[in-house]
Amino acid sequence: MKTRIEHDLLGDKEVPADAWYGIQTQRAVENFAITGVPISHFPELVKALALVKMAAAKANNKLGNLDSTKTDAIISACEDICGGRLHDQFVVDLIQGGAGTSTNMNANEVIANLALEKLGRGKGEYQYLHPNDDVNRSQSTNDAYPTAACLAIQFAADPLIDTIESLIAALSKKGVEFADVVKMGRTQLQDAVPMTLGQEFEAFAVNLSEDIDRLREACALLCEVNLGGTAIGTGINTHPEYASLAVGYLAEFSGKPMVRAANLVEATSDMGAFVLFSGILRRFAVKLGKMANDLRLLSSGPRAGIGEIKLPPMQPGSSIMPGKVNPVIPEAVNQTAYQVIANDLAVTLAAEAGQLQLNAMEPLIIYNLLNSMKMLGSACSMLENRCIQGIEADRERCAQLLDQSIGTITALVPYIGYANASRIAQTALHSGSTVRELVLAEGLLDEAELEQLLSPQSMLAPHLTTINKKS
Amino acid sequence: MKTRIEHDLLGDKEVPADAWYGIQTQRAVENFAITGVPISHFPELVKALALVKMAAAKANNKLGNLDSTKTDAIISACEDICGGRLHDQFVVDLIQGGAGTSTNMNANEVIANLALEKLGRGKGEYQYLHPNDDVNRSQSTNDAYPTAACLAIQFAADPLIDTIESLIAALSKKGVEFADVVKMGRTQLQDAVPMTLGQEFEAFAVNLSEDIDRLREACALLCEVNLGGTAIGTGINTHPEYASLAVGYLAEFSGKPMVRAANLVEATSDMGAFVLFSGILRRFAVKLGKMANDLRLLSSGPRAGIGEIKLPPMQPGSSIMPGKVNPVIPEAVNQTAYQVIANDLAVTLAAEAGQLQLNAMEPLIIYNLLNSMKMLGSACSMLENRCIQGIEADRERCAQLLDQSIGTITALVPYIGYANASRIAQTALHSGSTVRELVLAEGLLDEAELEQLLSPQSMLAPHLTTINKKS
Amino acid sequence: MKTRIEHDLLGDKEVPADAWYGIQTQRAVENFAITGVPISHFPELVKALALVKMAAAKANNKLGNLDSTKTDAIISACEDICGGRLHDQFVVDLIQGGAGTSTNMNANEVIANLALEKLGRGKGEYQYLHPNDDVNRSQSTNDAYPTAACLAIQFAADPLIDTIESLIAALSKKGVEFADVVKMGRTQLQDAVPMTLGQEFEAFAVNLSEDIDRLREACALLCEVNLGGTAIGTGINTHPEYASLAVGYLAEFSGKPMVRAANLVEATSDMGAFVLFSGILRRFAVKLGKMANDLRLLSSGPRAGIGEIKLPPMQPGSSIMPGKVNPVIPEAVNQTAYQVIANDLAVTLAAEAGQLQLNAMEPLIIYNLLNSMKMLGSACSMLENRCIQGIEADRERCAQLLDQSIGTITALVPYIGYANASRIAQTALHSGSTVRELVLAEGLLDEAELEQLLSPQSMLAPHLTTINKKS
Amino acid sequence: MKTRIEHDLLGDKEVPADAWYGIQTQRAVENFAITGVPISHFPELVKALALVKMAAAKANNKLGNLDSTKTDAIISACEDICGGRLHDQFVVDLIQGGAGTSTNMNANEVIANLALEKLGRGKGEYQYLHPNDDVNRSQSTNDAYPTAACLAIQFAADPLIDTIESLIAALSKKGVEFADVVKMGRTQLQDAVPMTLGQEFEAFAVNLSEDIDRLREACALLCEVNLGGTAIGTGINTHPEYASLAVGYLAEFSGKPMVRAANLVEATSDMGAFVLFSGILRRFAVKLGKMANDLRLLSSGPRAGIGEIKLPPMQPGSSIMPGKVNPVIPEAVNQTAYQVIANDLAVTLAAEAGQLQLNAMEPLIIYNLLNSMKMLGSACSMLENRCIQGIEADRERCAQLLDQSIGTITALVPYIGYANASRIAQTALHSGSTVRELVLAEGLLDEAELEQLLSPQSMLAPHLTTINKKS
Repeated sequence: MKTRIEHDLLGDKEVPADAWYGIQTQRAVENFAITGVPISHFPELVKALALVKMAAAKANNKLGNLDSTKTDAIISACEDICGGRLHDQFVVDLIQGGAGTSTNMNANEVIANLALEKLGRGKGEYQYLHPNDDVNRSQSTNDAYPTAACLAIQFAADPLIDTIESLIAALSKKGVEFADVVKMGRTQLQDAVPMTLGQEFEAFAVNLSEDIDRLREACALLCEVNLGGTAIGTGINTHPEYASLAVGYLAEFSGKPMVRAANLVEATSDMGAFVLFSGILRRFAVKLGKMANDLRLLSSGPRAGIGEIKLPPMQPGSSIMPGKVNPVIPEAVNQTAYQVIANDLAVTLAAEAGQLQLNAMEPLIIYNLLNSMKMLGSACSMLENRCIQGIEADRERCAQLLDQSIGTITALVPYIGYANASRIAQTALHSGSTVRELVLAEGLLDEAELEQLLSPQSMLAPHLTTINKKS
Repeated sequence: MKTRIEHDLLGDKEVPADAWYGIQTQRAVENFAITGVPISHFPELVKALALVKMAAAKANNKLGNLDSTKTDAIISACEDICGGRLHDQFVVDLIQGGAGTSTNMNANEVIANLALEKLGRGKGEYQYLHPNDDVNRSQSTNDAYPTAACLAIQFAADPLIDTIESLIAALSKKGVEFADVVKMGRTQLQDAVPMTLGQEFEAFAVNLSEDIDRLREACALLCEVNLGGTAIGTGINTHPEYASLAVGYLAEFSGKPMVRAANLVEATSDMGAFVLFSGILRRFAVKLGKMANDLRLLSSGPRAGIGEIKLPPMQPGSSIMPGKVNPVIPEAVNQTAYQVIANDLAVTLAAEAGQLQLNAMEPLIIYNLLNSMKMLGSACSMLENRCIQGIEADRERCAQLLDQSIGTITALVPYIGYANASRIAQTALHSGSTVRELVLAEGLLDEAELEQLLSPQSMLAPHLTTINKKS
Repeated sequence: MKTRIEHDLLGDKEVPADAWYGIQTQRAVENFAITGVPISHFPELVKALALVKMAAAKANNKLGNLDSTKTDAIISACEDICGGRLHDQFVVDLIQGGAGTSTNMNANEVIANLALEKLGRGKGEYQYLHPNDDVNRSQSTNDAYPTAACLAIQFAADPLIDTIESLIAALSKKGVEFADVVKMGRTQLQDAVPMTLGQEFEAFAVNLSEDIDRLREACALLCEVNLGGTAIGTGINTHPEYASLAVGYLAEFSGKPMVRAANLVEATSDMGAFVLFSGILRRFAVKLGKMANDLRLLSSGPRAGIGEIKLPPMQPGSSIMPGKVNPVIPEAVNQTAYQVIANDLAVTLAAEAGQLQLNAMEPLIIYNLLNSMKMLGSACSMLENRCIQGIEADRERCAQLLDQSIGTITALVPYIGYANASRIAQTALHSGSTVRELVLAEGLLDEAELEQLLSPQSMLAPHLTTINKKS
Repeated sequence: MKTRIEHDLLGDKEVPADAWYGIQTQRAVENFAITGVPISHFPELVKALALVKMAAAKANNKLGNLDSTKTDAIISACEDICGGRLHDQFVVDLIQGGAGTSTNMNANEVIANLALEKLGRGKGEYQYLHPNDDVNRSQSTNDAYPTAACLAIQFAADPLIDTIESLIAALSKKGVEFADVVKMGRTQLQDAVPMTLGQEFEAFAVNLSEDIDRLREACALLCEVNLGGTAIGTGINTHPEYASLAVGYLAEFSGKPMVRAANLVEATSDMGAFVLFSGILRRFAVKLGKMANDLRLLSSGPRAGIGEIKLPPMQPGSSIMPGKVNPVIPEAVNQTAYQVIANDLAVTLAAEAGQLQLNAMEPLIIYNLLNSMKMLGSACSMLENRCIQGIEADRERCAQLLDQSIGTITALVPYIGYANASRIAQTALHSGSTVRELVLAEGLLDEAELEQLLSPQSMLAPHLTTINKKS
């Protein structure tokens, strides 16, 4: 392999001649091989890094700290990367020591070499444009990296929100489709009182829709960044106007309402917004998991379970039991949810490990947030397209289970009292008689009253009756 | 022990004659003995339960479903309990099966017996006023209990927020006190660039202050309740106007802006707001833990550590090593933070375990939220009063460590370039020469320029110089 | 309140005149008020502390470092405490800073004052027998406290193991009782192939019995202690023969096979045995939770669920739905399991936070281990006595669900092939025809062959047939 | 793309003509796209699957249930795969619904097609040798998959144990190298008593070595497998001798002492051995993280920290601060440890989610165990080669910090008493006088006695003196 020699603080080192990255990236690749997942796995992060570098260059130029030739070359290089060029050159493993320095230097080096090309120079001719002195000018990893992370997460949130909204729409549609399917509601896995299958699916939809709002609020908190704080938030080596200017350009270039954090020292070591974001993903995962559990319960059977709904069969269910079709899609959703909950713990552990002016574990935080979002997006899409859309109600089964239950007695409580109702329920359960028969036999209500009260439909929402309390 | 006989669905049972609770509470006490922590451990929850019962009674009366005699007795009983009476009668263990039924029945029974007293009746004479038919009228555990929980958490949040604010004020005060103590900032435990000790403490203060906002937002989400949804959110056995009316009274009586959830079916099984709240407590614990870690690092020594600050000694540190004073208060804060993070996992696990129309694990959620809040409140107060207020700066030590460091070279980078600066730093580290000496020797900057750049004070914030880039 | 004055490194302080503890305990009580749970909540820990002090005194005496008068007084005091005396004097909160120093000093002070009484001296007359110089002689908190913890956990494990064994016996008994109840087995909540209810309960029993072995192995690892290592494991201030001698006495007095750790420096900071123990408790909790989930699933209904078993009713299930009986005992077990899993996280977090020669977070570890064991013991006992013992099979329901299922087709696969079997299963499911009818209609097997293969009983274990493969 | 048509329960479907897998794998690839990590990422799992299929075929043949032509072809195919052939055909995502059915079918299909080739048949000509009827004969996913998992984890454990042993050796070597470097020991980050740097590194080595034993024990528990239990452990569709025979062959082919679980029903749903294994990995991660923390603390500085050791510089530490070298390798170790702890939570969550006769979440468990082992192996190797081996002691710094400390006073306690020692320590700390000076001034000990007691070397282990107690 042809190589070129580059030099840094630790000495000389060979870099592949055609690599757009440089010596520090090369060292990092050799140092870290934990996950096998490179930065390029998350294009949002690559794009965000390029935008930060672009904004910094523009601000430096405006303040007279970077000449226009270099500035134009850097900006042009960053635009290329935002457009998708050279993503494969972002090669460092996402779990890395150094608080993101290697990711930042990977960006600095690729951008420098691409800018050098635009200046008609060769790779590694840093005397003409330097990864640190020019591309990283007025920055430190400690502000550039978390700022890029805040942006990358927002970029990843946009399609995730779209996917969730699509899933919600599919659930709502089923809510409408099943609006007239009356069935038994259950609490604590015990028969409770009637409801419709439509109410059940509409509740799923409403439940998830709240998380869209929470995700948006959490994104808003990520708009506050520490760019301009440099090493520890004191802004060493920056022009007094740099921070505001750079963040302003970042907002302009990214299309996100980025603002400068009020206290940059605090913002530099604080992982609070990431922990909060992770908590929202975790909450969403919990809800998704609960829904998947419900889908598996409701479709249990087909003959010896609840069986109120049928999931679309996606693959044969068993290598030994013919005809068995398993709820494989909800099961994959459950597992995704567990992984996201676990990833959230990794975020928490990393956040707690911050020390003094910085949190060296930031790369793990970013990795898990981006990974969880990617997994959740896939899971939601899979759930919508391969499960929810094809769900059918088993109307006969719903009706049958409702008919044979005694849960309807609840509707009589306001009229015959809790004590009478309890006694009749017990008798019904053990004797096999129906609630209706027993109430009539005891003369607690007459047939017309029972007709009015025991119609399942009348139990689906608050309602008025003309019947007086009997007890 | 004198007893009275009460009766329920499962038969007769003796209850202590002087107990204000009844048979269902008695059964629950016998069934559950897991934590040893009774409901009364959290007065906020007792009060919240009474307020829910009071609001329901008033709404039932207004709608003609509860006569005024009973209503007045119930309301009067609830007021007594809000005022602190009979809290010791809330005896059920907080970890209980039944989704909170036993807690709800404990409230129903105590209130019924207290109301009976007000009507001149004896304990257990439920034919005159019944725990289920009257106190629990138009309610189910499934709406009354989570509604009370939403309220209780808010009641517990008020003093917690006050305590945090007081801690923040103490940190800010130290920020002012230490504003002129210049010291070395550290990233990744390695010497970085100068800052003030005041900036460090001010950052702590700012960091925690964000959580006040988050707690308030999370409280706001808990104002949306499912009261009126009864068993599964369909509002069975309620008057069409009941839900709005009852929630309205609840807002009035509690002083909290409670509103009725838009979809009561969804709201009945949803634990999302609790998970979110727990996530906020977890985030706060993470921050508190990080701060405690920092305090322990900064006060490490006294001779063979960093030793930039001195914590007030609260107790002899060692049973064997005389004179040793340990950072016991931050250590207790760390442990509290870990427990809160762990409790948050319990909340998550419980929330994920919801099934169909209800989450039977709600009691565990409530228990952990209230417990974590109580512990955090104690920890914050302890930290403020027994540690932060007495912290002193070791100004000499701060100055000494700063003087001997080479981190100041960062300030020269814009003028001599990253490569030159790296080389000089390495030489300084190995030779023992100072940065100043080496830069002068190489003629990279002159004395006046160095004077301007290397003053620690000039590194504490962005600044302008008149010096040109040399490379 | 009458007080006496005591003195320590930090100065004078009033202690209640009748308190058996002294100044350092008093300071700790004031410093820490996080959980409200004092040491005395865990009598095993109090006893273990006394045993450590007793063993140390005896070893010191043997080596000529403690005179016999003091030794006898200390040993007599420790024996009293082991017998249950003065437990209420162990008042410090379990979450405490100082790595257990306050717990150790609480023991030192109570023992010193009790020993002083035996010497005819008054409380606080430490010139005659000193908490540090005599009771704590040759010890540090850093070896005495974890050694006591290792012992306390074993003491707590003994009754826990008994309780689990009793639960296992109850499950096995149900395994025998239900040995002839044939029912549908389920995988992924879908009907699979037949089994007996007895097999299901026997599997629960076998499953838990493995944890008895694991708990015993984990206890064995806790027999290795660092007593004699004093402050950091180097054994400073001890006689060369002290460590072996003291641990030998500890084994003798405690009845547990305690041994001295091979490397005391390592043993002093290592929390590995605690983390392992916690992992075993966590594993047991996971199994217990899974079993509770199964019990809830199998008893779901009574009419619109699986309903194969009936749990004994322990309390009315609902405040609004008469006759509803909920699986409250398994639900409480689930919540206990979640809390134990969460507590295990607290242990993990605390263990990871060790620094250099000690782990300052040990108190949190001990607290959570003892607390989890206590909760698990209560939960197992509750589950056995209030649920398992009273479970009844619904034999009719089991038979009915099995009859209507198509899962039996699996038994035909070796004879008609997977592809044929799959096709027939699908047809059966959609048409309502039975598997038997369809196989006969296609002439794949004859009646005699079907009789042999489709008998549920023949499917409960591997078996031979005389039938040839047809495909 | 050229395709062939295959058929299953759900109908026809195109498969790439040159794919060695078949229709069910194809469906699974389309269904699941959550992690992007295919089975082939873990060659141990591919090999283990082939071994299970080989053992089953051999047992079926022996019992007359599979003819020798098919058997030979299947065995030959499995041997090829064990040798590394066709691993890229194991394409299903590791997070999958169906409890591993897709992984099992992926193996069945690839092996069937490879065996068909050996029989001179084309891909998909399953009438000659069928993935289900022949390759999967006498098996279900529910026994074949977890059995393969148990084997795969052991295969992965072997190199992990080697890597850990190598790391331990490197730590021990440093223990020897630093045996004469006396330094201050620290507890709770406060100066304690002297020790050697060698003791510190030897403790790291001893600490990790215990986990080798635990890993081996945990592997032993994974030797017990449920092969032969088929669908739910009842062994439906197997010959009575099949289970023992198949497991015997598996032991022979794999070289691991595999045995048949005593209760196959229990073994089929039990995840206990996986949870335990995960707990051991978690424990190891906790220890690794603690060691990384210590390395970062001890190397903190270089000028304003502890600085007792120097880590080898692996890359420039900062993009803005020249000369800064950060502890990037330990930082990456910490992050790996956090991820492993988090993955352990995913395992726990998945294990708890088992229902009735199976745990549908097994794929997540397997994925996280294999992933954690892979990450830990990389991290240990990185830590050894890129950090431990190059660590140097700063002997001057160690001596300097020790000299200026007051922790040595502990050695005087047995002679001057705890109270005197405390007072002198306080005075020394505030006055700047040395302990030696103050003790002499007070006449508590004479010079010769002090010489004997205060030599750091005499404090490194228990020792005898000739000095009498003075107090």
